[in-house]
Amino acid sequence: MEMNRSATNVDLCVCADQVRVHKPLVHCITNYVTANDCANILLACGGSAIMAEDPEEVADITKVCDGLVLNIGTPNPRKLEGIRAAGIAANALGHPVVLDPVGAGSSTMRREFVLELLKEVQFAAIRGNASEIAALAEGMAAGRGVDAEDESANDAKGAVNHAKQLAKRTGATVIVTGDTDVITDGNTVYRVSNGHPMMRTITGTGCQLSALLGAYVTANRERVLEAALAAVCAMGFCGETAHERVRPQDGNASYRNYIIDAVYRMTGDDLEKGAKYEVC
Amino acid sequence: MEMNRSATNVDLCVCADQVRVHKPLVHCITNYVTANDCANILLACGGSAIMAEDPEEVADITKVCDGLVLNIGTPNPRKLEGIRAAGIAANALGHPVVLDPVGAGSSTMRREFVLELLKEVQFAAIRGNASEIAALAEGMAAGRGVDAEDESANDAKGAVNHAKQLAKRTGATVIVTGDTDVITDGNTVYRVSNGHPMMRTITGTGCQLSALLGAYVTANRERVLEAALAAVCAMGFCGETAHERVRPQDGNASYRNYIIDAVYRMTGDDLEKGAKYEVC
Amino acid sequence: MEMNRSATNVDLCVCADQVRVHKPLVHCITNYVTANDCANILLACGGSAIMAEDPEEVADITKVCDGLVLNIGTPNPRKLEGIRAAGIAANALGHPVVLDPVGAGSSTMRREFVLELLKEVQFAAIRGNASEIAALAEGMAAGRGVDAEDESANDAKGAVNHAKQLAKRTGATVIVTGDTDVITDGNTVYRVSNGHPMMRTITGTGCQLSALLGAYVTANRERVLEAALAAVCAMGFCGETAHERVRPQDGNASYRNYIIDAVYRMTGDDLEKGAKYEVC
Repeated sequence: MEMNRSATNVDLCVCADQVRVHKPLVHCITNYVTANDCANILLACGGSAIMAEDPEEVADITKVCDGLVLNIGTPNPRKLEGIRAAGIAANALGHPVVLDPVGAGSSTMRREFVLELLKEVQFAAIRGNASEIAALAEGMAAGRGVDAEDESANDAKGAVNHAKQLAKRTGATVIVTGDTDVITDGNTVYRVSNGHPMMRTITGTGCQLSALLGAYVTANRERVLEAALAAVCAMGFCGETAHERVRPQDGNASYRNYIIDAVYRMTGDDLEKGAKYEVC
Repeated sequence: MEMNRSATNVDLCVCADQVRVHKPLVHCITNYVTANDCANILLACGGSAIMAEDPEEVADITKVCDGLVLNIGTPNPRKLEGIRAAGIAANALGHPVVLDPVGAGSSTMRREFVLELLKEVQFAAIRGNASEIAALAEGMAAGRGVDAEDESANDAKGAVNHAKQLAKRTGATVIVTGDTDVITDGNTVYRVSNGHPMMRTITGTGCQLSALLGAYVTANRERVLEAALAAVCAMGFCGETAHERVRPQDGNASYRNYIIDAVYRMTGDDLEKGAKYEVC
Repeated sequence: MEMNRSATNVDLCVCADQVRVHKPLVHCITNYVTANDCANILLACGGSAIMAEDPEEVADITKVCDGLVLNIGTPNPRKLEGIRAAGIAANALGHPVVLDPVGAGSSTMRREFVLELLKEVQFAAIRGNASEIAALAEGMAAGRGVDAEDESANDAKGAVNHAKQLAKRTGATVIVTGDTDVITDGNTVYRVSNGHPMMRTITGTGCQLSALLGAYVTANRERVLEAALAAVCAMGFCGETAHERVRPQDGNASYRNYIIDAVYRMTGDDLEKGAKYEVC
């Protein structure tokens, strides 16, 4: 891995350390299933969270914060209105905004909302699984007319192509998480192989990563792509070190705690040594 | 216990194993207090969860799932509308639906809503404590007129009678949890003595059992009564094995994790050996 | 510390023991981020929780409870309406009511709502951090006109003065939490030095303390000031004993569990011995 780091000049250690130095306060609008984990992982990495979702107050709240994470899980119309208002307010303040389009491919309400949101809010980073990112990439392409749709939708090359398309169309760094994770700004593409299969047995590791991205991107605004790479490596690396603690009677509940604990304990140097990524 | 299992021909091992084989995706509409625990216990047993409650999207979400759990905790009118719409959509798709009438006896809003819901949605299973099941059984009886009410309400025989009445009127398998748990389809009645008193010191073990029932019933649709018996035994058995891990400094927070861990570790054989039930 | 206890005649042991004797059922309207922790800490101390927030049912729910905790985190207009209705209903029933004005200084919506609420609901106790209590104290003073505002707003003496002002104006015992905690009824002022810096790395220790206050105040209605002192000392003391369990790989997630575990294990005698407070 040394080779890759030299070649691309990414200093993951600094990205992680900047979070502990700047202690970003991140406004999170997130689903109620994983809100507690998101707040605790933000504290674990050196940041902190405020949760507020009502359209009447989101602009006030985002003003006292440094960055914003928008997670569309457990949506309702008023919350979605709050997400939109917060995104616009954060853009006006110049705060980095991270989008987690949870289940964007699973309901018309979510897909249509997110596609509208992408027109109104400029995102620093967008993180989803392959089907969520595909729903966004294909949805944006479809918006350009039938010919454009033919060109890009259902691209056989899969996640990387969808991610690159979405990054180019939105100007955001796009992260697709799965067995290996893809991070791209539309040009450079990183693949991350950190992580452990047992992470799939915990609810909300994706939401937690999006919260972590909020802290990393906010504390490293001048290098969003590298900050995103660092956050993705950090989550996977902590999944690995946490798994080393798993004892014979432990299951996914203890493992959930161990991962957040690992984020709490991880130093920039640990990340530098443990990150497993390559440039494609 | 061997005798009972022979007599009734219930194969708990198979019921548990089917969950790990079929990996049911369960749509949960649940309260925000225990939503995280419900999602993690579903993953622990071999299934997984999607949480979505807005009436605008529940039909879309339930379509991509295999079963549905409706928990009426922390209700508001829009969420209740979503519960109703999801139940109707799941019935149309032929998905098993589990009801947890949290606090049905504690507010007019909840009681009236649930009584209406029972007319519109066909449930595979209904789980509550004695007062919740009594509220439903008596409420349905009252709906049949004063004479009917006299006949069935405030029945001195208690939980078993309420459960049998409710099962007969709804066609659902009814589970009453308490010091011993009762499971009935209106004819056969099982009593389960698994469990540990310390389970009462954790919030949401009832909600968690309802989520577990969602997975078990969905993966064993052709034998709902047996699947419900298996889920109830599994929850209690895991409460017992989890308690064996409790050390002098541990309290209810660690115990909460140990129970979900135990569900994660439990095999069908473990359940077969540890289940304590009898046919009444 | 013996000296202080003699001088002021506070029996912290009895305050804690009364919670385990009376097992207060506390109606909580709280944010969805920490709702699970609040429910589990209430069970840990010997009480229990019901969570319900909709204006249509809060009066029914509060009627079957013994006390009420109102936490304004993750607000929306309907929930705030529910908070108001529950507070009025609890006052009519003579139930103690605890207010946690989360983020009262961070949005106009929250500040204006809380200032109105203080006119309509009589609180037994109000707990916040220094900026939240300042927002309330200054907001109430401002409501009395410009001269009054000059007199009390932005008082240089800080947290203690704001707490005393707020206590005098509302008749509530006011608790300001921070590096040291202040508890006052407007006359007597206690300072508590229990606690551990690592508590700041867990989301919701403030919310959890407010839930704990709900149980302590409800089980000790005839001595609210002393009950509040006991709850504040208990939370900090449990933060200390929990920290003794922290091992090299543990982080804030494990520590979160250890604190609730410590509350579960703490006896009245433990509290009596471990409390660190003084009368100012």
